[in-house]
Amino acid sequence: MKYVYFFGAGKADGTGDMRDLLGGKGAGLAEMTRIGLPVPAGFTITTETCDHFLTHGRKYPSALRGEVAKSIARLEKLTGKKLGDAKDPLLVSVRSGSARSMPGMMETILNLGLNDRAVQGLAKATKNERFAYDAYRRFVQMYSSVVIGLAKEDLEHRLRALKQSLGVKDDTEVSAEGWKRLVGEDKAYYKEKTGEPFPDDPQEQLWGAIGAVFDSWMGEKAVTYRRVEKIAGLLGTAVNVVQMVFGNTGDDSGTGVCFTRDPSTGKKTFFGDFLLNAQGEDVVAGIRTPMQLQEMAKRMPKVYPQLERVRHKLEKHYRDMQDLEFTVENGKLYMLQTRTGKRSPSAAFQIAVDMVNEKLINIEEALERIKPEDVERLFYPVIDQKLSRTELSSRLLVTGNNAVPGAAVGKVVFTAQAAEEWAARGEKVILVRHETSPEDVGGMFVAQGILTATGGKTSHAAVVARGWGKCCIVGAEKLGIDLAKKTIHANGKAVREGEWITLDGGDGSVYTGQIDLVRPQPPKAFATLMKWADKVRRIGVRTNADTPHDAKVALEMGAEGIGLCRTEHMFFKDFEHPEKSVERQRAIQEMILAEVPEARRAALDKLLPFQRRDFIGLFEVMDGLPVTIRLIDPPLHEFVPHDSAKQAELAKQIGISAEAVARRVEQLHEANPMLGHRGCRLCITYPEILEMQVRAIIEAAIDCQKRGIKVIPEIMHPLTLDKKELKILDDQTRKVAEEIISRSKVKLHYLVGTMIELPRAALLADQIAEVAEFFSFGTNDLTQTVMGLSRDDAGRFLPEYVDERKAGIFKEDPFQSLDIPGVGMLVEWGIERGRKTRPHLEIGICGEHGGDAESVKFCHRVKMDYVSASPFRVPTARLAAAQAVIEEKKANKPARAKR
Amino acid sequence: MKYVYFFGAGKADGTGDMRDLLGGKGAGLAEMTRIGLPVPAGFTITTETCDHFLTHGRKYPSALRGEVAKSIARLEKLTGKKLGDAKDPLLVSVRSGSARSMPGMMETILNLGLNDRAVQGLAKATKNERFAYDAYRRFVQMYSSVVIGLAKEDLEHRLRALKQSLGVKDDTEVSAEGWKRLVGEDKAYYKEKTGEPFPDDPQEQLWGAIGAVFDSWMGEKAVTYRRVEKIAGLLGTAVNVVQMVFGNTGDDSGTGVCFTRDPSTGKKTFFGDFLLNAQGEDVVAGIRTPMQLQEMAKRMPKVYPQLERVRHKLEKHYRDMQDLEFTVENGKLYMLQTRTGKRSPSAAFQIAVDMVNEKLINIEEALERIKPEDVERLFYPVIDQKLSRTELSSRLLVTGNNAVPGAAVGKVVFTAQAAEEWAARGEKVILVRHETSPEDVGGMFVAQGILTATGGKTSHAAVVARGWGKCCIVGAEKLGIDLAKKTIHANGKAVREGEWITLDGGDGSVYTGQIDLVRPQPPKAFATLMKWADKVRRIGVRTNADTPHDAKVALEMGAEGIGLCRTEHMFFKDFEHPEKSVERQRAIQEMILAEVPEARRAALDKLLPFQRRDFIGLFEVMDGLPVTIRLIDPPLHEFVPHDSAKQAELAKQIGISAEAVARRVEQLHEANPMLGHRGCRLCITYPEILEMQVRAIIEAAIDCQKRGIKVIPEIMHPLTLDKKELKILDDQTRKVAEEIISRSKVKLHYLVGTMIELPRAALLADQIAEVAEFFSFGTNDLTQTVMGLSRDDAGRFLPEYVDERKAGIFKEDPFQSLDIPGVGMLVEWGIERGRKTRPHLEIGICGEHGGDAESVKFCHRVKMDYVSASPFRVPTARLAAAQAVIEEKKANKPARAKR
Repeated sequence: MKYVYFFGAGKADGTGDMRDLLGGKGAGLAEMTRIGLPVPAGFTITTETCDHFLTHGRKYPSALRGEVAKSIARLEKLTGKKLGDAKDPLLVSVRSGSARSMPGMMETILNLGLNDRAVQGLAKATKNERFAYDAYRRFVQMYSSVVIGLAKEDLEHRLRALKQSLGVKDDTEVSAEGWKRLVGEDKAYYKEKTGEPFPDDPQEQLWGAIGAVFDSWMGEKAVTYRRVEKIAGLLGTAVNVVQMVFGNTGDDSGTGVCFTRDPSTGKKTFFGDFLLNAQGEDVVAGIRTPMQLQEMAKRMPKVYPQLERVRHKLEKHYRDMQDLEFTVENGKLYMLQTRTGKRSPSAAFQIAVDMVNEKLINIEEALERIKPEDVERLFYPVIDQKLSRTELSSRLLVTGNNAVPGAAVGKVVFTAQAAEEWAARGEKVILVRHETSPEDVGGMFVAQGILTATGGKTSHAAVVARGWGKCCIVGAEKLGIDLAKKTIHANGKAVREGEWITLDGGDGSVYTGQIDLVRPQPPKAFATLMKWADKVRRIGVRTNADTPHDAKVALEMGAEGIGLCRTEHMFFKDFEHPEKSVERQRAIQEMILAEVPEARRAALDKLLPFQRRDFIGLFEVMDGLPVTIRLIDPPLHEFVPHDSAKQAELAKQIGISAEAVARRVEQLHEANPMLGHRGCRLCITYPEILEMQVRAIIEAAIDCQKRGIKVIPEIMHPLTLDKKELKILDDQTRKVAEEIISRSKVKLHYLVGTMIELPRAALLADQIAEVAEFFSFGTNDLTQTVMGLSRDDAGRFLPEYVDERKAGIFKEDPFQSLDIPGVGMLVEWGIERGRKTRPHLEIGICGEHGGDAESVKFCHRVKMDYVSASPFRVPTARLAAAQAVIEEKKANKPARAKR
Repeated sequence: MKYVYFFGAGKADGTGDMRDLLGGKGAGLAEMTRIGLPVPAGFTITTETCDHFLTHGRKYPSALRGEVAKSIARLEKLTGKKLGDAKDPLLVSVRSGSARSMPGMMETILNLGLNDRAVQGLAKATKNERFAYDAYRRFVQMYSSVVIGLAKEDLEHRLRALKQSLGVKDDTEVSAEGWKRLVGEDKAYYKEKTGEPFPDDPQEQLWGAIGAVFDSWMGEKAVTYRRVEKIAGLLGTAVNVVQMVFGNTGDDSGTGVCFTRDPSTGKKTFFGDFLLNAQGEDVVAGIRTPMQLQEMAKRMPKVYPQLERVRHKLEKHYRDMQDLEFTVENGKLYMLQTRTGKRSPSAAFQIAVDMVNEKLINIEEALERIKPEDVERLFYPVIDQKLSRTELSSRLLVTGNNAVPGAAVGKVVFTAQAAEEWAARGEKVILVRHETSPEDVGGMFVAQGILTATGGKTSHAAVVARGWGKCCIVGAEKLGIDLAKKTIHANGKAVREGEWITLDGGDGSVYTGQIDLVRPQPPKAFATLMKWADKVRRIGVRTNADTPHDAKVALEMGAEGIGLCRTEHMFFKDFEHPEKSVERQRAIQEMILAEVPEARRAALDKLLPFQRRDFIGLFEVMDGLPVTIRLIDPPLHEFVPHDSAKQAELAKQIGISAEAVARRVEQLHEANPMLGHRGCRLCITYPEILEMQVRAIIEAAIDCQKRGIKVIPEIMHPLTLDKKELKILDDQTRKVAEEIISRSKVKLHYLVGTMIELPRAALLADQIAEVAEFFSFGTNDLTQTVMGLSRDDAGRFLPEYVDERKAGIFKEDPFQSLDIPGVGMLVEWGIERGRKTRPHLEIGICGEHGGDAESVKFCHRVKMDYVSASPFRVPTARLAAAQAVIEEKKANKPARAKR
């Protein structure tokens, strides 16, 4: 096994695609060396070495010391300098470098190799004693804090004291003598703290630095970063030991970072910052204001064109936008790093499309370059970046879980009713609740954003809001809600009902007052790329939509039909005529409170015209596209009020006793409503409901057909668990439908099918497919039952299950990304069995997973016909579907040598 | 297709094993005819005809009329009589007869063929005009009510009026003239009601009667009976048209019913009732007190020995105890029916064992003869049958679901605490609750019986009570419970706390006052037969037991180990020292209320000695047998009080604020606790609990081993859903265990395994078996999750799903008998996958299904190592396990001709 990879003088042991072994920086340095770019020589110690070090009690592989010694010798030979030399010493930097970028999360030591003797050599060689001692004191400070862990504050305190005693303000004003004094003081401090003298031997320095870099892989910062960024499966960090070059030797020196294209817009302009007479760390520290690259062109007319050439060469070589670091030492350009540049969502689209046009990459590569998050983030309104961080943090009220990104501004209200009333008079509101329930849906719909004190990213509020692409922050646990006083309070601030707050769904922050928002316009490149995706993908993409408005948005987002229309929302809310919502609610409540089928039927008769009109609206928008309508699903208790005041009001309006209402509500209470009297079980018990809903669907369809609107209704029974059960419902559905159709004399083709959302239905899919014309996998409930996890309750322990620092049992929240090994196995089984009975069975998915990229890819692999996603996640699904095809192609191709 | 089967004069078209086609009665008549017994001639119209009739809008198959006409002709020829003949008319009975006995549930018409002309012939032939007109009036009445549906009350009213006008009291005193008058009146009434004259044509009478019998198959009585008795899969009833014989022609005539052995005790004595000069219906009507068979021997010394011979012949022929009907007409014996006799549970055992000893049947047949219910019912105390029905019904308070059979007497109490207090001072109590929760377990344990107003047969109360074999009635919905006044009321009666009630768990009746109970002693035959079962069966039978007492009972019942010890019950109740229960409860509550691991650990330290002692008790009883111990399973909220008074008390005792207690309880609230923070998820979050429980188990085991008691502990993690999750728990379990074992220097072999009770665990069983040393299928929860059915809530709709008159989706409640197609498929998959990884993986089942015969047979088929049942269901499981082997043998044998 080889632990050390050398590079220098146009040759390198490593290559650019050895990122896993050499880290991004090491691989970049090797590759840049190979393609003839000016790179200071050095060597990379592999990530495997790090892994060995960390898993063997901080012991190195036995061969390492020899390899390092050989590489140092080679470096000394190449540079003509020697470590610790009294005349012209070799100085090196020792830097971390992981396969995935983790900026600033690990350690770096510069100017290594200096000691009391070498510093004089450096002074002599550079003819700059001040520079030499400045470098020396930087090294001593860095080594003390990074390798030994001495307190940075103490070191900085001494620097400040020095400047005070010298009567100077800036570091640049400190003389060589001053730095010399500081070096002495820092070394004394080092000895006092460690009991050992500061190591003079460059070898000792080097091994100390290597160990410190390796250790930093497991430092708290780095571990947290990997968890947050979901970086897993890496061996560790590499260590890059590179000859030092100095950007701070005078005005013909400098240092900079740049992007080969604009990372915000994606435009093909060279973009970056440059500092004259400075070291890289000065750019990062932000002490001096850097100049634009254009300015550098003027100040370094010879060097700048070289850099431009490097830019083009690297972009062509890597075929992607690069993020570069360079230093100019005495007029000579050195490239210190190249890596794929991070970019904004819209830049990602622009660059991908431009590069296809430039023939740098092909369409498939362009599609692969877009991350699903990029698509989603494209559409969320965001807080105007003009506001300063300080201003923002002074306004911070509380933070919660960023359930739905984007931002929202509105006045605080505490009930769905208030939200609707205020919105009706034109106010923008933010609905603030402990948690939301289906009763709140009307208020949620009219609110700009939703804020809850409890619940996770898959709570009711989050799921409903995500469906609408509406900004939502949930689980802001530090938020006090005082309903009596109508105030919220946190962080020493209080906000009353009617006062403004601003939600930033991007990071979960809640601010007091109004902050300006901007809604990004998707770039043209978005449309181009999505068209490409549509050409490539095979699986269909429908949407989950309950209203004509949602359906329209989804069509704009590219939906090819409705995969899930949840009819129960229509029982709460008249989306077109909000003033009629109460009428609907009363009717459904009357239905629930009815003691006999006749009374139930009478109440349902009142609902029929409403539902019919709702369906007409949907069918009109979806002209020519399939519309899958799920019959009533939630348990009835969700439709009735639970507090006695509201119950009394309801009783009065319906004309029965409050006790009767309370008794019925109590009867409806369930220990585990998720597993209770809901889904198609309701229509087994109350066939009148099915009859009304089917009637509304078919009558609406016929009304539309008569007007030349093409309707393809798919009637869907939820929560089926047995063929016989579905047969009863299917018979009844067809009986109602056929009677209406034959009376109308209009031709109408419709399907009757079922959700597969219980394990038993998936297990017995072959039997169920004898009745069902289509399956729609309800993976929300299937996940709940397969895993025995309640979405509403899993917040107690699921985070621990997903957190790699704790139990780390799952990589992802299974409600966000489908649990492929478990739930997925059952889905696959269900598809296989279902198609065995009915080869052309139409199969889709309509859970939250339909908008999750990895889940969409799974759906493609198991040969579903379509996925259904909430409107704003439709583009994500389209992209993921295309990526699935590309991945499949690659997997089926015989492995070829990598480029 | 043949619709009519004739029998007579020693020959028969049918045979005794054609029960499905001819019904039990028809098959019996055919078989008795074939073996030369005296049977009146006749014919049977098949059950297939009934099916055709009922499914074709009451139309008969076209061939039927011809076949019936031919059979009538044959009957006329054989008897030398003609239907409607003026001299000596042929009279027939038209009787129902299903493949399974449904006594009294369907219709019968006797004396068919009489009209104004034939009655004179009958009078002439019998030389008994009074008899002839009596027969005639009986026929007219029966035909009017059965075939036409005229009100029986009207007919009876006219009979009473007649007797009044004649000044007589008994039917026997009515003269021929009287009957003649009644016939006239009844016919007039018939015409008035129907607009048609009473049918004189015997053919018309016959077809009317046949149709009425077929219709009675779908009559409400019959349908209800089939549902209650779980009779399914039959085509319909047969119709038996048989020459009338008369037991009421004088004192050398009579009629009787008898059993070839005593159906109550099983003793080999001829047992039955006989009435001189009477028709069969008189025996059933109970108007006259019948004589014992012994008496008949004296009164009919010639006929009785014939009957004795018939008895022996039939028993030998059928090789089972028979239930016979016979009539003696003018000194001649006619057999009218033979069928397998119903018998009491203890008779079932006695007869089976006796018949083996008599070499009538072999051991396997004996085992097949015992129904699982027989075993269970053997052990339940029952209400003393000496009390009259009238007395009982006057005392009836309410009825509910008969969750656990047997009976119980005690004083009403309303809280678990009261139950414990009253029991502590020696009172017998019945705990009456709306529903029970684990907090009530102590009170339930000390109560004689449990009565709840809500809940089904698998509610908490039912399940816990069944485990103890404790009488329990649940879901007595009409029971009003007034906790403020401490009374219950129903049926116009009220019972106060402290007053006696009696529960009959056999039929779900609740009576006021004390009724004497008798606990049946299992007969010796039980022990013999169970020994045979043990020799035959292959699958092991363990028990679910949490206390040494339960364990002892289970051992007596034949358990071979503990398959499930639920440790959480130990947190509520000190079964040996009830006065220490509070101490335990406080400790677990302190643990739950603890804010930091240290405080949690301190509380757990208090529990440790209790749990250790509990385990020692179990291990001592189970010396040498395996004991599977499940770590904590229920959600924590089940351990804390939910009402504010108790919360305040708890707060005071623990020394924290009542608000803190309330807040914590509120935090613990879950929307769907079944799918919430429970099972092994608790030990993932709170490893301290696992540590304490494992410590208690291992320390107890070592204590026992040191004393020469052999301990085989199997530590079981509940609700696992992932290999990685189980690995974390397994590592921790072994770490704690190994440390204690190595310190003790005692050798101890233990297993660590898991419950498989979530679909995901079953699906990924191959992975989980990499860690688990054993699987125990928790089919209660697996049923809940696979079917998406909450046990606690399914009462709302599951009855409809099981009711064949309604949806009829399932044959059985899936919580009582395993859903083999769905849940069973997953169990099979899990076993196959688990054993693929670990071929000798020990596999058992510990849900309620472990005591259900059909489920046990399934477990045998899928090659589980053992089932675990509650103590009183252990014998059922042993028997079912043996029956499974016998069924398997039969299935594997090439089909042979039926006897």
